[in-house]
Amino acid sequence: MSSCRAESNPDVAAAPSASVASSAAATAHKPNVSFCQSCGGPTKLAVPEGEEKMRAVCTLCGRIFYENPKMVVGCLVEHDAKVLLCKRNIQPSYGLWTLPAGFLEMGESAAEGAMRETLEEACAEVEVLSPFAQLDIPRIGQSYIMFRAKLKTPHFSPGPESLECALFSLDDIPFDSLAFSSIYVTLKMYSEDIKLGKLNFHYATINKRQGASPSDPRGFSVESHYKT
Amino acid sequence: MSSCRAESNPDVAAAPSASVASSAAATAHKPNVSFCQSCGGPTKLAVPEGEEKMRAVCTLCGRIFYENPKMVVGCLVEHDAKVLLCKRNIQPSYGLWTLPAGFLEMGESAAEGAMRETLEEACAEVEVLSPFAQLDIPRIGQSYIMFRAKLKTPHFSPGPESLECALFSLDDIPFDSLAFSSIYVTLKMYSEDIKLGKLNFHYATINKRQGASPSDPRGFSVESHYKT
Repeated sequence: MSSCRAESNPDVAAAPSASVASSAAATAHKPNVSFCQSCGGPTKLAVPEGEEKMRAVCTLCGRIFYENPKMVVGCLVEHDAKVLLCKRNIQPSYGLWTLPAGFLEMGESAAEGAMRETLEEACAEVEVLSPFAQLDIPRIGQSYIMFRAKLKTPHFSPGPESLECALFSLDDIPFDSLAFSSIYVTLKMYSEDIKLGKLNFHYATINKRQGASPSDPRGFSVESHYKT
Repeated sequence: MSSCRAESNPDVAAAPSASVASSAAATAHKPNVSFCQSCGGPTKLAVPEGEEKMRAVCTLCGRIFYENPKMVVGCLVEHDAKVLLCKRNIQPSYGLWTLPAGFLEMGESAAEGAMRETLEEACAEVEVLSPFAQLDIPRIGQSYIMFRAKLKTPHFSPGPESLECALFSLDDIPFDSLAFSSIYVTLKMYSEDIKLGKLNFHYATINKRQGASPSDPRGFSVESHYKT
């Protein structure tokens, strides 16, 4: 089991992408590669031939560096009409509640990554039931891919990144103590679907206000929401 | 408009991730960062404290380098019961047909990226209608996010990466001349949905056989297919 602390802080960007102010700033993203990871040569900022965007380009070997958004994958684990939440044992949002989720790794599918994160953070073996939501957060270069899942056995306990894991009925979800906007939106969409008696797949964009805390429910807006 | 050649070859991995043989190889992915992109120092392979996976770690400043799968975003543009395909003007799969798609950029949502790629490759202004599919290809570290879309105006023409753009009725889709497994699977799922009279959201994993050509319809299998 990996606690994977350095990269398991979804919804909080690494420094460079945090400086992207809004989705309209796509072309203004400033490359953040000072040295070539292949040969160690210094890079310069340039628009490569046939392209429009500024990239870091190695001044020695010519390699072009592309930076792309990352997928955060997680599970909404259902059990006895409740959902499984984990209280975070790490920053950011220490002590706040989240769904088990983390960065997708090379060599795994999103569903596999979501099950792995659930095992790591809640020591729970789960089976994916269906895709539930994709929530893009352009300002921090992240896309949350959330799956509905069920426990294979009725066991769970906090992994190294969690202080506590617990099942919550929909009426008891601590919406004022959630760790990230993406988790807030996922659980709101899920609660709404359950109340209406129809589970959808949701796609939406979360536009965060610059400087808003990851856990501030008033620090973002939800746009381009499609249900399938 | 950007032709963005170096990164618009979806379904074909950069050298390092192509060496990952299967999704079971997630933990065996070999880091591919020889030098630190922050300080230029040489890296070493190590398992950082609290983690389980081998990462490239800078021997000078200690920075850890994570490599993650990339999202490829595209549109399935519907018009008069036909879909818009582009004949590729670049390698790989030069001369074969594809849906407009390319790598998601920092600062944009997946839907925005899919519309941008459609403008770049087919000079078509489109509006996203709904998410249609997520197809993960773990062996090459890519995840295709495909949207249904419609033309805002009935105009399209080949961009720099396309030789030709054309509308195809479902019975005329050139399944033996498609550029990528992901495009083949997307169009098969779409044709099936249209015939059955119900459009779903699809999530699936494409497992490619090692060494298979990107366009070989027998070079992969589709697994973990969920419809919503």
